[in-house]
Order: sequence, then structure tokens, then C-alpha cells
Amino acid sequence: MLQYITSGESHGKYLIAILEGIPSGLSVNTALINKELRRRQEGYGRGPRMDIEKDQVMITSGLIKGKTTGAPIGLMIINKDVTVDSLPQLLRPRPGHADFAGALKYDQGIREVLERSSARETALRVAVGALCKQLLQKFNINIISHVVRIGTVNINHPNLTFEMVKKMIKASRLNCISREVEKRMIKEINQAMKRNDTLGGEFEVFANGVPVGLGSYVHHMRKLDAAIAQGLMSIQAVKAVEFGLGVGYAAASGSRAHDELFYAKGKGYYRKTNNAGGIEGGMSNGSDIIVRATMKPIATLKRPLLSVNMKTKKTDSASFERSDICAVPSCSVIAEGVVAYEITRAFLEKFGGDSLTEITRNYKGYIRQIK
Amino acid sequence: MLQYITSGESHGKYLIAILEGIPSGLSVNTALINKELRRRQEGYGRGPRMDIEKDQVMITSGLIKGKTTGAPIGLMIINKDVTVDSLPQLLRPRPGHADFAGALKYDQGIREVLERSSARETALRVAVGALCKQLLQKFNINIISHVVRIGTVNINHPNLTFEMVKKMIKASRLNCISREVEKRMIKEINQAMKRNDTLGGEFEVFANGVPVGLGSYVHHMRKLDAAIAQGLMSIQAVKAVEFGLGVGYAAASGSRAHDELFYAKGKGYYRKTNNAGGIEGGMSNGSDIIVRATMKPIATLKRPLLSVNMKTKKTDSASFERSDICAVPSCSVIAEGVVAYEITRAFLEKFGGDSLTEITRNYKGYIRQIK
Amino acid sequence: MLQYITSGESHGKYLIAILEGIPSGLSVNTALINKELRRRQEGYGRGPRMDIEKDQVMITSGLIKGKTTGAPIGLMIINKDVTVDSLPQLLRPRPGHADFAGALKYDQGIREVLERSSARETALRVAVGALCKQLLQKFNINIISHVVRIGTVNINHPNLTFEMVKKMIKASRLNCISREVEKRMIKEINQAMKRNDTLGGEFEVFANGVPVGLGSYVHHMRKLDAAIAQGLMSIQAVKAVEFGLGVGYAAASGSRAHDELFYAKGKGYYRKTNNAGGIEGGMSNGSDIIVRATMKPIATLKRPLLSVNMKTKKTDSASFERSDICAVPSCSVIAEGVVAYEITRAFLEKFGGDSLTEITRNYKGYIRQIK
Amino acid sequence: MLQYITSGESHGKYLIAILEGIPSGLSVNTALINKELRRRQEGYGRGPRMDIEKDQVMITSGLIKGKTTGAPIGLMIINKDVTVDSLPQLLRPRPGHADFAGALKYDQGIREVLERSSARETALRVAVGALCKQLLQKFNINIISHVVRIGTVNINHPNLTFEMVKKMIKASRLNCISREVEKRMIKEINQAMKRNDTLGGEFEVFANGVPVGLGSYVHHMRKLDAAIAQGLMSIQAVKAVEFGLGVGYAAASGSRAHDELFYAKGKGYYRKTNNAGGIEGGMSNGSDIIVRATMKPIATLKRPLLSVNMKTKKTDSASFERSDICAVPSCSVIAEGVVAYEITRAFLEKFGGDSLTEITRNYKGYIRQIK
Repeated sequence: MLQYITSGESHGKYLIAILEGIPSGLSVNTALINKELRRRQEGYGRGPRMDIEKDQVMITSGLIKGKTTGAPIGLMIINKDVTVDSLPQLLRPRPGHADFAGALKYDQGIREVLERSSARETALRVAVGALCKQLLQKFNINIISHVVRIGTVNINHPNLTFEMVKKMIKASRLNCISREVEKRMIKEINQAMKRNDTLGGEFEVFANGVPVGLGSYVHHMRKLDAAIAQGLMSIQAVKAVEFGLGVGYAAASGSRAHDELFYAKGKGYYRKTNNAGGIEGGMSNGSDIIVRATMKPIATLKRPLLSVNMKTKKTDSASFERSDICAVPSCSVIAEGVVAYEITRAFLEKFGGDSLTEITRNYKGYIRQIK
Repeated sequence: MLQYITSGESHGKYLIAILEGIPSGLSVNTALINKELRRRQEGYGRGPRMDIEKDQVMITSGLIKGKTTGAPIGLMIINKDVTVDSLPQLLRPRPGHADFAGALKYDQGIREVLERSSARETALRVAVGALCKQLLQKFNINIISHVVRIGTVNINHPNLTFEMVKKMIKASRLNCISREVEKRMIKEINQAMKRNDTLGGEFEVFANGVPVGLGSYVHHMRKLDAAIAQGLMSIQAVKAVEFGLGVGYAAASGSRAHDELFYAKGKGYYRKTNNAGGIEGGMSNGSDIIVRATMKPIATLKRPLLSVNMKTKKTDSASFERSDICAVPSCSVIAEGVVAYEITRAFLEKFGGDSLTEITRNYKGYIRQIK
Repeated sequence: MLQYITSGESHGKYLIAILEGIPSGLSVNTALINKELRRRQEGYGRGPRMDIEKDQVMITSGLIKGKTTGAPIGLMIINKDVTVDSLPQLLRPRPGHADFAGALKYDQGIREVLERSSARETALRVAVGALCKQLLQKFNINIISHVVRIGTVNINHPNLTFEMVKKMIKASRLNCISREVEKRMIKEINQAMKRNDTLGGEFEVFANGVPVGLGSYVHHMRKLDAAIAQGLMSIQAVKAVEFGLGVGYAAASGSRAHDELFYAKGKGYYRKTNNAGGIEGGMSNGSDIIVRATMKPIATLKRPLLSVNMKTKKTDSASFERSDICAVPSCSVIAEGVVAYEITRAFLEKFGGDSLTEITRNYKGYIRQIK
Repeated sequence: MLQYITSGESHGKYLIAILEGIPSGLSVNTALINKELRRRQEGYGRGPRMDIEKDQVMITSGLIKGKTTGAPIGLMIINKDVTVDSLPQLLRPRPGHADFAGALKYDQGIREVLERSSARETALRVAVGALCKQLLQKFNINIISHVVRIGTVNINHPNLTFEMVKKMIKASRLNCISREVEKRMIKEINQAMKRNDTLGGEFEVFANGVPVGLGSYVHHMRKLDAAIAQGLMSIQAVKAVEFGLGVGYAAASGSRAHDELFYAKGKGYYRKTNNAGGIEGGMSNGSDIIVRATMKPIATLKRPLLSVNMKTKKTDSASFERSDICAVPSCSVIAEGVVAYEITRAFLEKFGGDSLTEITRNYKGYIRQIK
């Protein structure tokens, strides 16, 4: 069973994840992981920290001569801005952050909370996901994302498919499929910056090539959509997760909502629509998995909200820490990693196997079986 | 660590769940569990099966003289409509259901799939949740829900609180806070019925009295919102989960989105808004937990969608099984149960303890500590 | 991932287990499960309760027309001696039992403790294991056991193999391979009975046909021997678990302790010895898995030991409840079930798959691969 | 829920563990962890690798200003002998090692297997355990071990208690309580060395101060002895685990085997014997936990056993890698760490809490309750 733990503070030296359960025989391309890390750091609207850190992963274990061995894989990123033990204590929790509840829960200062609750940790989730993507690609499963909304600017492009997004996404500063919408989004970010404000948004993750039957309906803990929802909701600042038509399902009637099934020789089973976002009964159904998430605006504000000094109990404005204006494009990259991990986990659970050879054989046997 | 497994087929005799990890010393009121089961079965728009089944739980273990002992608790519901072994095999998967992917995955017929993927299983989740509610009530934690949308009819009532919903919800046929909106919803259901169509909708679950600090930001597997999202998304037909402002966060700027913090002597910390839905940093923050979910329309249609005969591979209309027109009110009751379970799980993890005495002492100590 | 929970009290009506994760397509033979249940109840030295209960399993879910569907499998045994709510409270804990620690931990009476800690629960573990055995047999994996010691009487028969035990075990009243030793064991039990005393003993479980490579060395949670040790030590009264040479390894030098490896065309790899008990590096190595466990004497004594009245704190003799003189043969049957479950779990983790068809294909592919 | 994953190869640069679930507020003493690491490396009979590596832990995360924050704790040891990518491939599996099964299972070379299956990994388990010990000491729980047998030399000292062992163990080269026996053990090791042979042995771990009621009888996954057995059996080369009287229970009758219970004012409940090894019904019973394990002789022999060249399938002598003659004292130190971890896990599950303050309050409340 695939699992991972991340560790590290925002301003500690070491960010380290251990990913346990990857089979043997996979050649890992570190450059591709670094490319994903770079994608997380880019995006118009990120803060000054991104000028300091240029994340590079070091794989500390689990590979011999570049190939996985089945052993736990250590993924390490070294921080440049290492100040965790010298940073000042904070007393005024930032509304929207872990500060308040975290300080009470763990009976400690806000500094101790934010060093761990910081989104800096998500660099490791990207690294973990980037490695999973390399495994999935051996089975022609590919995962991409695109931003559909930043603040009040959104894109309205129904019936997008993986192939369309893939073609349209190239070289975007905001991971957006439309150059025109992107311009308006950048304007929106610039305006927020001037107001010392922050912005949230929405993005979609597409997984293409996922075989029918990952996840299961038999037990509430086995549903693939539930696992992906858990993963995405655990990303800092994500507040909503929707599959396919998502909230739009509520207003649609059954006769229009569900995706009719067709069959053609050679092509096999197919659909003309994908309202389900590739999930029926908690399982992948062979269509693209499409999941959409909403990120709330960054909670650290240059013009801070009202808060309470936890020592004096007096009203005061919240603390300010260096932060971003808008991190929705980054969040979409993190979400790709999370989706890649969850699909890999479900994939390995279905196909078993300890080596790439064995998994490939099992996978191919199943594909033949369901034809 | 609290856990449960459900078992049983839609038309099998026994629906049984085992709930493991409930502490000793809780007097269990079976009538209250049955009341929740009844709530799940009611609601305008349910199908003829509800006239057959009048769910009553039997507690098969884990109680001695009406009190929990710490041992696993068996919850059994006996089906009246027991025909699982004599029902005909089906060949044409219903779009939107587990039929298609389930049959391929498990290499079996559609009948075998739908007997388990059926929402009949959710009766057990309601029973599990109803028992959890009784534990939570010892700590003044209460959970309710209300339906906010059925098809195109929705209620628009911002800034609802637990207390408001509690007052307004009484004696509704659709678990709706407004008699006026309810009437329009019933009309919507009647129209769908005439069209042989089905409807989905949206509902909200409120948890009141949850102490600050359940869940945690320290590890992706410890976040309370992620756990609740996993639980809700695992309910049949749920396609979207949102906390607080949810998808509405995307268009709100940071300066307006986050809930400022206040303090008053006697009252302690408080907020004037609750956009966060009671969750910050993956933890309960002391405000009501508010989570909204979208249910897709029932996938079993009297006027069936197009499908494929999995034997002949020819296009044909999907199978029809006795079904509901609209089950959103039921789904909201199930969701209460799921939320109750997830909060209980996080509660027991935070407060430890094996008996109600011990947990109460630990809980009170913490409440004093964070004052 | 295979898992199960058992529920039920010693004198409650329902003993129910749910086994989750068994693949589809397995024809389950209930008579074979009942046969194993009978084996658990027999054995010279069992107490009067065994005259009352004649365990018969009812499968409450997870089967349609006698075949597994992938859904959770409910296993129910109905107790005849149902008196849980009317039995008297006890105040004097029996040394060696859960009574003392259980009453303090759960802040309740001894009655509440012993109703759950009772070995009556192991009937369900036998049922779970008997079902697992039926799955394993599809892959020619077979599990048997034999008693090697009761009290001071032991059998000394080095280098036993699965085949030898299988041949010699038939029709024994004590699950013992030697009629001569069995006679002495029965005499030992008779003598203990006269003294109002009880006896423990030792037994071995053999698993034959386990393919090379179940379990793993890569992570401490993946080792097969550790999982089996966990399972066996969790059986009531088991106090020691040994693989192969076990404690005998301590006095053997390396040059004599390890099993040299050979290869012959047709036969493939093989060993001439099996000191390792079929486990190297936490994995099955293709030889028989041989694990030995020690059961302590029954802790309920007709001539009770000294204890303390937990109310008055005065010294008094411990409570007496109807009990056995010796249950080592029963324990060996339970242990077979536990080993069957753990091997099934490791087997399904390695081979993945959701249907018997798929698992068989995956298994055969691997067997070819490692030839 | 406490958990950890270790990572790293025997000759890779980084050995890293992440320990997740330690509460906030614990001042960690790195020197004490290093002292335990040194204890693991010492002991007469270790091989030349121990002259190269002088293990020092670096804590990479989870501490701010020397105190735990509740965040995952990274523990890193840097290897000096870093040659993993340049070491030659091996073809002749060493009997007794993971080589054979590991190479087949993961479809890779023996080198890839032994780099992970190596006992080098246990340095991290010692580090994890040493940190857990520091938490346990806050509650006056202490853990020590002593070697009771090396090869044919064993110590026979019945009724040892934690206090006795603690007094007698000081400054031993073999972690042995008797100077006289130690001399004979060293002689035994010297003789084995001359024969190019290796030795195993036995050791005991004692845990003192464990409160009544860790673990539970209610579910097979909650038993403390089963968890400890799982942990110990997962240590490389451990083949047997026994609690208290262990295998000796088999020949003892019930009237002599169980530990009678007494009570004295001031002192509370107590026992005069401890055959149970501090465990009844899968729970700590307030007496010292005493667990004994058997380590098989080191499987790497200078005068190698017969094996098979996995390429040519020809019989040949097994590979030789630099190794130890006897590592039983090291193994006893590792086992202390494993027991410390398992007790900490059970302790945190019982007492809940996120900060040392909270846990201490919960713990004290329980101790008062059960008085």
C-alpha cells in the first residue's frame, strides 16, 4: 500500500518526504521532478520567497543506479532561507490560517504553528506526485491541470477534454488555456496587489488514460473519488472539491445529467459526454477523471484583518508574514501531484505486483480481460 | 481509533455494520437511532421500496444492560424485501451508476454490483452516525442538516447559523427551512415524476459545539476537513463537497473572505462571520462546522438513457430498477451521520480515553486549558 | 487490503465478523467453515460450554448464489447460551485474565470485560480463516497444525514437513501426530482435571504451497513473519511465537543454522532443511511456513488463585467461571485460521486483482516469471 | 496515531526516518539519541563496518528551539561508507538472508535487495526509539535490556526485575548482567571467529512504569503484546518472541503459572510474581513488561554455505559481504527502541492529547481514577 509522510518547516533547512510502496524497476528522472517543482514556484502573483528558493529535489534513498528498488524513496529539498529558530514569536493569529486553532491545540506559539502549516510543505507533495506521474506514464496515464478562475475572472469553456487542455495550456503564466482570459486575470491580480489584497480561484485537474475500475463501491474507504477529495481538501487553502459537473449536478435533471454509454468495434465502450468526471460508483469509468477545486484567497494580508493578541486578549490587526497575492496556479500544480499520488495508490492496489515487469503484465492482462 | 465496516446487499436479509472504538459507559438509546433511520426513509420523492422497509436497528453486541463496554458494536437491520438470489441478471448498465465499471472490475454481472452499490447500505451509515451523535451530545456537540436546493429550486438565506436552522427545520417533508421554498420543491419533484425524470440537489450539514482543535495541520492525513470530505464524497451520488463559502471563495478577495477574530470577557474568542465553515488549517476553529454537498440526480430512470448490452454490445436502453425520484433529504440525513462519525473519530483521537468518565475529564481539562 | 472486525460477547446472542476485501468469484463452501468450527470445539479437555454450543456459521452478506461478489462478507454464529444481561457482576479478577486491567482501563465491572475477552470470540477467527483457506486452496496453499506439547508431555519429532503432518494427524482427539504421545497427553489432562488444575501447551502451524515473495523486507510494517506474529500473539493465551528453529536458533551457529540453497532442473530451487520456517528477510521463501506458538494454561481455575476483591480491596480467591481444562488443540485450530488470514492478506497485496480470474492470471504470470 | 517510515540503503549516503505523531512541548536531547546509537554499534563481535561509521543523528524537522512542535520529526544519519552505486552485482544468495526471495520478488539483483534488507536500517529504529524513550521518561516509564544467551552460553537467573537488571548491567561489553557469564560469552565469540562462524542468542527487554491498561482485549488489532511481537519480529534476524514465562508456560500448570493479585494500602495492587511479563488480556497490567527475543546467527559467513548462482543455476558457495560475528547485544538495543516505540504508540492512543501539558494532565487523571 502506497503511503508517504512529509516533514520540514517553512524556514527549516530540510524538507523531506518518504514515499513508501513504489515498485522496483522504474527509472526515475530527477529533472522531470524539478520541472514540476519549478512549475509550482512560478505563476504570476507569487511572493518574494519564490525569488529565494529554487527548489531542487535530491533523492536520498530507494534508487540504485537511477532505478527504484522497491525500497522507501527519500525526497529532499534544501531550503535557502533557514531562519526557523531565530524568527520572532507571533501573538496575533491571521484569520483564515491555522494560527489560532493550532496555537491552542498544541499549547504553543503561533510561530511553531505556521512553520509547519505553511504551504512550503506542498513542494514535497509536488515531488511525490511528480514521481508518481513517471510511474503512471508507463501505463499511458497522464495528468494535467488548468486554472479556470482567479477572483472575478473566469473562463467559460464547456466540454473540455484532456486533449484540448493539453494543447491549449502551453507556456501560460497562470496555467490558463486562454491568452485572453489570462490577461484579464493578470490585471485582476495587479489590482489586488495595489489594494494589498489577495485572491483565490478555481482550477481543474484532468487524468487521462485511467483504466476502468480503480477504486471500488464495496466499502466507503475504497472509493476513488473520496480518496481524491481527501487528498485535495488536505491541500492548504482548498475549500471545495467537485467531480465533473460538480455543483452543477444539483440543477440538472437525471435525464440530462448522466453520460450515456456507447460501443463501437475497435474503439470499445465510450461516452459522448463526461458529466461524471470519469467517476461512477466511486470508480474510474474509463473517461477522463475531471476534478475541480476552489482555493480561498491567501490568508496573509499586507493590510491585515482584525485579530486578537492572544497574550493581552486585546483586539489588534493580525500578523503579517511575507506572502503571495495569488497562488492558484501553484495550487493547481500541487493538486496534479495529489491526484497523481491517489491514482497511483489505487492503481497499485488493483494491479498488485512488486516490479514494473509484474505490474505491467498484470495491467495488460486486465485490459485484455475487460475488452 | 474509531472505524467501521458495513455489510449487506440491497435485497439480502441482513444489513450489518460493526463499529469499533466507541468507549465504555455510554447509554445507548436505540429509539433515537431508529428515529434517524426513519428520517432517512422519509422525504417526499422516495420510491416504493420505502413502503416495504421500516428500518429498525438491533444492536447485536457491545452493550451490556444498555451501556457500551468498549467492545465492537454490531448494528443490524433486517430487510423485508429479500430476493437477492432470485433477481434476474441485468445486461444494460445504468449510466451514472456503478453498474458498468463494477461489472468489468469484478468480472461479474450487473446484479452483483448493484446489490452492493445500492444506497440501501446508507441505512447503516445513518445508524453508525446516530450512535456517534449520542456520544457527541455528551459534549454538547450537535449535528443537523437542511436541504438548500432541489433541481432548479433553491433557498437563498445567507449567514445561517446552527441555531437558526434548528429552529426553522421542524416538521419539514424535505428537511427544508422554508415552508414556501419547500412547496416549490415539491412541485419540482412532482413535475419530474410526471416526466419520469429524477432530481438532485444540495444540502448543508452543521455541527455545533465542536471544540477548537480537532484535526490537525501537521500531516495531510490528519486534516479534519479532508476526512469529512472523504466521508461525504463516499456517499452514493455525492459529487461536490464545500466548506463554508465553498466555491464562493474563488470570487471573494482576501480582505473580505476571512473571518476576523474577536475576544470578549466571559464569551472568550469569537467571530462575527463564518465563511470558513468552522475549519482553519484543517482544524475545527470553534465556529459551527458548515459543509455543503451536492447530490446528483438519481441515476435509475423510468425513461432510461441509452446504454449498451454488455453481452451483445448492441445499443439499448439501460435497465430500470425500482427507484426514487429525488432522495436529497435522505442524503442530508446520511451526511449528518457521516459528519457525526468523522467528528467523533477526531474527537476520540484528540481526547483519548477508554471510558466516558475518562474522556469527559480529558475534555474538560482541555477546555479549561485553552480558555 | 483485506481486513476484518469481530464482534459479540461470550453470552450474547450474536457473534458477527465482517471480512472485507475478499475478491469476487469464489464459491464458498459453508460446510467446510462449519467443519473448522467443529474442530475448534472438539479436543479432549474442553469444558461444558462446548456441549451447549454447536457452532454453525451463517453468511449474511457478500455472496450471491453462493459466490463472493467482492462485497464485505458477514459471518454470523448464533449463541445458544444467551445470558449476558443477567449474569452476576464479579469482583475478584482471575489472575492471568483480562479482568483486572480491563476493569480499570474501561472503568467498568469484570463481567463487562470477560464477556468480550473470552475466547468465545475466536470462533469468528476460525470462520474468517476457514473462508480464507478456501481462497488459498485455489492456489494450492494449504494450512494445517498439530499439537506438540501439553503440559509436561511433548513430542520430539525433528524435521517434520507439511506432508508428514498431514498424513499423521488424522482422527486425533488432540490434533497430535502420535497416538502414543496422545495417550500420555490425555493422561496428563485427566490428572490436571482431578487436581482442578489447567494445562497449556505448544503447537505448530504449517503452510504449504506459499509462493516465494509474500511479505517484504523494505519496510517494518510489510514483513510477513511480523504480521503472523502479531496475529498469533493476539489469540487469547498465546505467550510465545517462534518461526522454524525458533528459540533453538540461539544455540546454533551460523554454519549449521541456515538452509543451503539448491537447484534442480524441473524441480527448480529447493532446500534440504527448513530451519527458517519458510521465512527469510520477512518474506516467504518457498519452503513450508512453520510457526510454533505457546499457549499458557487456562487462567480460570476451579481451585482459584488468590486475588483481591476490587470493591473491598480484601484478599480473596478469584472468581470461577465455567471453563476448560486444556484448550491447546482448539488454539491450534484458531491459529490455522489466523495464519490463513495473514497469508491471504499478503497474497492479495502481492497479486492485486478483484476477481478470482484476475488474481489467478496475475499469480500464474508471477510463477512463470520467477521460474 | 504514531507512525514512522525509515529509508536508506546500507551504503547510501542518507539514512532518514520520519516519525509522525509526537506531541508538542518535548525538549529533545540529541546527545541521548546518539548515546543509544553508540550502544547499538558497540558490543564485542561487531564487524569492521562499525570502525567506519560513528552514527550521529541530525534532527531535520519537527523541533523549534529544541522542542517538539507536533510536526513530523525527521531523523537523519549520514553514512560514511557510501558506495551503493558502485558495488558489484551478486549472484549467489546467502542462505538465511533476504537475498533469494527478495531478488525474485522484486525482479532485480541481490545487491538491490541487501542494500535495503541490511541491518544498517536499524540505526534509525534505535533513533526513533531513543526519542520515544525521552517522551516515556516524562511519565517514569523506562526501558532496558540484557543479553541472556550467546550461542551455547546462557545466564540462568530467574525472577529478574527491572531494578535488578538496571543495577547489574553497567559497563558490560555484551549488555550482560554477569561479568562471569560475559567472559564465557566472549570466549564463545572468539571461537566462532576462529571457525569463521557466527552466533545468535537471546535477550530480554524490560519496560518499567507502564501504567495498567495500555493496549486492549476488545479487538485483535489493539493488543499490546501483539503489537510488540510485530515490532520485534520485524527486526532483522529475530525468529522468536516470548512474553514473561514464554515457552516455559507450556509445561507449567495453571495453578503455578498465573500471578496472584494482592493489595496493600499505599502500595495499591501488586504481584509477587511476574510470569505474565506484565501483559494480561493484551494489556499492560502494571508489572514490568518483560519480553524475550531470539536472534538467529548472522547469515553472512566468511566460510559460506552452499547456494546457487541465480544466473547459471549452478551450485556455488554464497556471496560474502563484510559482516559481524555476533550482533546480539546490538539487537537488544534495537529491541529496546522498538519496544519504546510500541509503548509510546499505545500510550498516546490511550491518553490522547497534543501537547505534553495535555497528555500529562490526562495521564494523571487516569492514575488517580484507577487508584
